[in-house]
Amino acid sequence: MLISGFHNIESILSYQPKLIVKLFISRSEDTRVIKIKHLAKISNINPEFLESKKIDLIAGHSKHQGFIAEIKNLGFLSEKDIIPRLKNLNTSRVLILDSIQDPRNLGACLRSALAFEFDAVIINKDGSSPINDYVFKTSVGAIVNLNIFYVTNLSRSISLLKDIGFWVLGLDGNGEGSIFSEKFSSKTAVVLGSEGSGIRKLVKENCDLLIKIPISNKVESLNISVAAGIIMYELKKQYIN
Amino acid sequence: MLISGFHNIESILSYQPKLIVKLFISRSEDTRVIKIKHLAKISNINPEFLESKKIDLIAGHSKHQGFIAEIKNLGFLSEKDIIPRLKNLNTSRVLILDSIQDPRNLGACLRSALAFEFDAVIINKDGSSPINDYVFKTSVGAIVNLNIFYVTNLSRSISLLKDIGFWVLGLDGNGEGSIFSEKFSSKTAVVLGSEGSGIRKLVKENCDLLIKIPISNKVESLNISVAAGIIMYELKKQYIN
Repeated sequence: MLISGFHNIESILSYQPKLIVKLFISRSEDTRVIKIKHLAKISNINPEFLESKKIDLIAGHSKHQGFIAEIKNLGFLSEKDIIPRLKNLNTSRVLILDSIQDPRNLGACLRSALAFEFDAVIINKDGSSPINDYVFKTSVGAIVNLNIFYVTNLSRSISLLKDIGFWVLGLDGNGEGSIFSEKFSSKTAVVLGSEGSGIRKLVKENCDLLIKIPISNKVESLNISVAAGIIMYELKKQYIN
Repeated sequence: MLISGFHNIESILSYQPKLIVKLFISRSEDTRVIKIKHLAKISNINPEFLESKKIDLIAGHSKHQGFIAEIKNLGFLSEKDIIPRLKNLNTSRVLILDSIQDPRNLGACLRSALAFEFDAVIINKDGSSPINDYVFKTSVGAIVNLNIFYVTNLSRSISLLKDIGFWVLGLDGNGEGSIFSEKFSSKTAVVLGSEGSGIRKLVKENCDLLIKIPISNKVESLNISVAAGIIMYELKKQYIN
C-alpha cells in the first residue's frame, strides 16, 4: 500500500516505522522535510529524494505534500485475538462498526476512536470499506495506533465480548435508552451501523440495549462519524468523571 | 441553484416549498416518487416528469436519485438581524463557524446544528465555502430550516452577541477550559475554526473563554464536524438536564 501526506508519514514514522518498505521525500528544505528526515534517521530508514513531479507519478496524484511511502500490509487482528487481548482489562471501551462503506466516515470514526482512547475497533471484513490510502488519510494516521479487529461475523464477536464482561450498546434512532441519561458500564462496547440502513437486524438483536442520541425531528439522523464521535466522547467523559 | 436527491427535495418540499421554481421527477412509480408527488401536490407544485437520462443532463451528474429542483437563492440573514432575532431569547445556542472551507464539513456542521436545535449559525461570508449544492446535500437539507447569518466581520458579530447577554466560547486545542467540566450559560455561542489553522487570532481574542475537548496526545485534533457535533451535543444535553 502507498501512503502519502505529511501527517500520515509522520504518524507511521513515529509509531510504526517497521511498516515502511521505502520512503520518498521531495527535494526541498522546508521544516516538514527536516522533521520527516529526522524521524527517518532515528528509525534507520534511508529516504530517497526525488523531484516533486516524480512523486506525483508514484502517487498517481499531486496531493502528497512531498512525502510518500510504500508500506507493508497493515497487520490487523482477528476474532481469535478478542479474548486474549481484552479479557484482562478492568475498564475498556470498544467500538464496533457494522458495514461502514463510506471511506471518509470510516477514517473519521477511527480518528475519534484513537482520540478518545478506545482499546479496540471491531470491523466486519466483508461489508465494510477496505482500509485503503483514503481511509488512512481521513484517519490522519490513527490506524497505526489502534487495535483493529477484522472479523467475518460481528454477532459472534459481540457474544465473545459479552462472555468477558462487556455491556454491548447499539446506537439506533429508535433505541429505548438515551445517551442523555445512560450510565455506562466500565466495560462497554458500542455498535454503529451505516448511515443508510443502520445496524443489521441480527447484530442489533445481539446488543444488550439500543440507545439513541435525541435529535430534532426535522433531521432524520446525524452524520455517522459525528454520531460515533459523540458516543465515544460520552463514554470517555463518564470514565474520567 | 439546482438541488437534487430524495432527502434534499423532501426537505425543501416539507419546510420551504416556496423556494422551488421548478421540480423535475423521473418517470417511475417507486415509493419515493409517490412521496415526493404527494408533497408537491400539497404545495400546489406541478412537477415535470422526465426520463432519468434527461435529469442527468440537467443535473450534470447521475446521483440525483430521480429528483431535481431549481430553487430561488436561499435568503440568508445578515449582521443587522442578529440583535432583533436573538435578543429576546432567554435560552439560546448559537454556532459560529470561522472560515470552514471544506464543503462536506460545513454541511455536516449545519446538519448537527439543526439536530441539536441551535437558534442560529453565523458564518463569515468571505473566508468560508459557499453554500452550494454539495453543502446542501451533506447538510441533508438542514439549511432550509436554520437561521443562517452571513456576516463580513465575525469579531463584530461576537461583540453584538455579548451585548445581548451571550457567553462566547471558542473551541481550541490549547484552551484553558475543558468541555468535560465546563458548565455552560443559558445563552451560549460557540466558535469553531478550520481544521488546519483553527480560529483566527482576532476572533479568538474576542471570545470569553477558550475550551478544549481533551483527546489522546497521539491525535493532533478531531475532524472539525465531529468536534462541532460534540460541543453542540454537550450544550444541548446541559440545557435538557
